[in-house]
Amino acid sequence: MNRKQLVEQIFTKRSFLCVGLDTDIKKIPEHLKNEEHPIFSFNKAIIDATASYCVSYKPNLAFYESMGVKGIVAFEKTIAYLKENYPQHFIIADAKRGDIGNTSAMYARTFFEEYRLDALTVAPYMGEDSVTPFLEYKDKWVILLALTSNKGSQDFQLTTSTDGERLFEKVIRISQQWGNEQNMMYVVGATQGSMFETVRKYAPNHFLLVPGVGAQGGSLQEVCKYGMTKECGLLINSSRGIIYASNGRDFAQAAKEKAQALHLQMSDLLDML
Amino acid sequence: MNRKQLVEQIFTKRSFLCVGLDTDIKKIPEHLKNEEHPIFSFNKAIIDATASYCVSYKPNLAFYESMGVKGIVAFEKTIAYLKENYPQHFIIADAKRGDIGNTSAMYARTFFEEYRLDALTVAPYMGEDSVTPFLEYKDKWVILLALTSNKGSQDFQLTTSTDGERLFEKVIRISQQWGNEQNMMYVVGATQGSMFETVRKYAPNHFLLVPGVGAQGGSLQEVCKYGMTKECGLLINSSRGIIYASNGRDFAQAAKEKAQALHLQMSDLLDML
Repeated sequence: MNRKQLVEQIFTKRSFLCVGLDTDIKKIPEHLKNEEHPIFSFNKAIIDATASYCVSYKPNLAFYESMGVKGIVAFEKTIAYLKENYPQHFIIADAKRGDIGNTSAMYARTFFEEYRLDALTVAPYMGEDSVTPFLEYKDKWVILLALTSNKGSQDFQLTTSTDGERLFEKVIRISQQWGNEQNMMYVVGATQGSMFETVRKYAPNHFLLVPGVGAQGGSLQEVCKYGMTKECGLLINSSRGIIYASNGRDFAQAAKEKAQALHLQMSDLLDML
Repeated sequence: MNRKQLVEQIFTKRSFLCVGLDTDIKKIPEHLKNEEHPIFSFNKAIIDATASYCVSYKPNLAFYESMGVKGIVAFEKTIAYLKENYPQHFIIADAKRGDIGNTSAMYARTFFEEYRLDALTVAPYMGEDSVTPFLEYKDKWVILLALTSNKGSQDFQLTTSTDGERLFEKVIRISQQWGNEQNMMYVVGATQGSMFETVRKYAPNHFLLVPGVGAQGGSLQEVCKYGMTKECGLLINSSRGIIYASNGRDFAQAAKEKAQALHLQMSDLLDML
């Protein structure tokens, strides 16, 4: 999906919500565990319940890999289901990959050719040749970690260089020599609050993928206040806050209500543009 | 495997070679492609041919993931084969993972509990809580990216902070507050030459995992000159240089000869300690 299509989806649906499919076999409702494909059954129900309220889904690879072959089957079935039933949704593999060139090229082949996903999260530590193989695919996106939502983001990402620039700022600046607003986004945690103002100085128009609203405690209003652009420029992710809203038989309905509530707030925020 | 056992293996076998199993379906010999499990057949032959000359194997997850379910089956069969036939070998999952705490915990469960591997490569960008979940397992190792072998290592890893410290130095220094010489190693590329001297100032006794000898052009002698410790302190990886030494029917024999040659050099280098 290209940028124009993504922006259209956001304004048509009045939503910039991304639902994170961090599906953990230990956390899904008991009654699903007897099904043939419990993880897929869970995802399918969540997707059907939330698709009207979001523009994007973000399966987190860790959760699928942790179950070996069964997990990969569940991941593949989920992607196939999305592609067939909700082809307008922007699908992000949250994988935080990044390796030497020939290995990154291999990951790119997997996620963009085999699974035909729209975007992949990538860690910047290994620099240019670990990122550029992902940028060779038309209408596919790298979502580079910049300023993450966790406490550990303070350990290295905020280190100031002798040029007076913090590491996350340098990552945003330098990576714009490799990609552009059409094929690169940045991860900025919702917990970073007013730091979005700084991010916008470095990347005034890039889309930002924003995790950390919900379970991690970030504020949607604050993120939008400092981070929103005329084209919205934000994909706000909520995972646990939506998919585990209930662990009873009403889990899909509960997820729907959480997504609906966020959709309503987002619709209002888009109206203010 | 704990540090004492690893050091014993190295001195018993007179080798600190790690063979990287970066097995690409596009690069294995034609005659294997008709087998039921071509990737596993290739790995099995490579392992049987090289096990006497190395102390470690390092499957690179990207190559297995790129083949979906088939790839994961090949990975699992390879691990099971190693565990059954070569239980003394130190197995590293080259995955370069690292995510917020609950996700890293999930990866740790996968690699350490399910697959019972010895070590995992981890990217440091997200800081403490992305790394510590891996350190909670006894006799398991985090191998943290410090100064990688690729050209892109110059983009961020060499950035000097206002404290006069380069990022890779800070990574090594700070991460020693989280782990120790018994459960943490660092990745330092063989292509970094005399930088090993600097690394040793920050981590005089830690084991280093050193990729980049062979196809990437690093020098074994130079790495040892600057990086070797009394307990060896090095695991030198070669992937493509060994496993793709030939792509004919003699591929295993060719791999054996390459491993044997490195073993001979390593044996001499250990004699000089």
